[in-house]
Amino acid sequence: MTTPYEQLAKLSITLPPVGVPAAAYVPFAQTGNLIFLSGHIAKKYDSGAAIVWTGKLGENLMTADGNAAARAVAIDLLGTLEAACKAAGKDLNAVKRIVKIMGLVNSTDSYTEQHLVINGASELIAEVFGSSVGSHARSAFGVIQLPLGACVEIEMMVEI
Amino acid sequence: MTTPYEQLAKLSITLPPVGVPAAAYVPFAQTGNLIFLSGHIAKKYDSGAAIVWTGKLGENLMTADGNAAARAVAIDLLGTLEAACKAAGKDLNAVKRIVKIMGLVNSTDSYTEQHLVINGASELIAEVFGSSVGSHARSAFGVIQLPLGACVEIEMMVEI
Amino acid sequence: MTTPYEQLAKLSITLPPVGVPAAAYVPFAQTGNLIFLSGHIAKKYDSGAAIVWTGKLGENLMTADGNAAARAVAIDLLGTLEAACKAAGKDLNAVKRIVKIMGLVNSTDSYTEQHLVINGASELIAEVFGSSVGSHARSAFGVIQLPLGACVEIEMMVEI
Repeated sequence: MTTPYEQLAKLSITLPPVGVPAAAYVPFAQTGNLIFLSGHIAKKYDSGAAIVWTGKLGENLMTADGNAAARAVAIDLLGTLEAACKAAGKDLNAVKRIVKIMGLVNSTDSYTEQHLVINGASELIAEVFGSSVGSHARSAFGVIQLPLGACVEIEMMVEI
Repeated sequence: MTTPYEQLAKLSITLPPVGVPAAAYVPFAQTGNLIFLSGHIAKKYDSGAAIVWTGKLGENLMTADGNAAARAVAIDLLGTLEAACKAAGKDLNAVKRIVKIMGLVNSTDSYTEQHLVINGASELIAEVFGSSVGSHARSAFGVIQLPLGACVEIEMMVEI
Repeated sequence: MTTPYEQLAKLSITLPPVGVPAAAYVPFAQTGNLIFLSGHIAKKYDSGAAIVWTGKLGENLMTADGNAAARAVAIDLLGTLEAACKAAGKDLNAVKRIVKIMGLVNSTDSYTEQHLVINGASELIAEVFGSSVGSHARSAFGVIQLPLGACVEIEMMVEI
């Protein structure tokens, strides 16, 4: 059995610390054995500092860009998920199931590849957790705009 | 007591098999006694083959079209729900409550009848399950675009 | 056996409680100790009558207007939450955690302050329940249009 940590190491991914929400809410909330992660907007690193990954699919970003942004969001979500697990006295090995994600794609009114964008997150999750823990339900759709102009926002629900 | 199957027969509805997701996720995920169904996009049948029901409300589709599309999505969701029940060793008779649906309507920026569109799904669910099991919480809203140009996408959460 | 006529009667005699939007769903649904509240659209009062609070951020409403609308929605949500608690034989004192809200902001394609709009709801919730019960996960995003032209719609999930 491979652990999520072994998979992350194989992928050369270091989980980031939990980001500070831009507003009056918290990054995650647990009820029973379910953890609800807030919508995380896409960020990229510029000289080591995280800045918002802005843009609109169909306008100034290609599907491959959006896919990379969604993968980056998934890594940030896993960082928050690890913090949530630790708050419960556990770690990522305690994840029983990635239940569902909701993926929002900043889109023009003619861009129709939101599912391919959000695959960037879904595929990373499957790589890290394997197909039985990592295979999740999902909704993906286009939105007219996101906070701070981000190109992608994803929220996640997890069973531990 | 009428069963969901008797109601489906009365409505002459045959549940479809579970569709293959267009991307890297699964059609449903269960945690505890809750089943989360992925967002299902509207499909219609052309010479027996399911094709994406494309279009935008306020542009090339009327509210009645959207309502019919939402009803079609609900039928597909019930097909997936039956598969989810069977995966748990049960069938639709085990459904205790349709808890919530989220209905996304591909809309122009002046179209404001998303609630009437999504009623096509909500009313079918009520017909099939009756008012105590079938009455659900709901959010409905307009989106700028959906995967593959679909006119409607709906996700559902169910207690068994 | 229920006849189709009895079934139609059952659907039409479902009396909505005060404040239920005119569509085929209910204001809340409980499963286990979780209450799911339907998306509530913003309303304001005109000579004592509640009317839909219409408008689009970035076009004819400022961020401060949207923030006030989101606060008004939160008040309506708490009214519904109290009704949900009473339906379970309890009251708002039984709320253990506001788990998550989803905030939809009717936006132009260049408006990027959805997080500041939805703060109007998040901050009221924190005021009413305090930071340990009231601090919640959240997603906020822009949508192209909402039912009846509302400027804001918010759904909420609560543990009792």
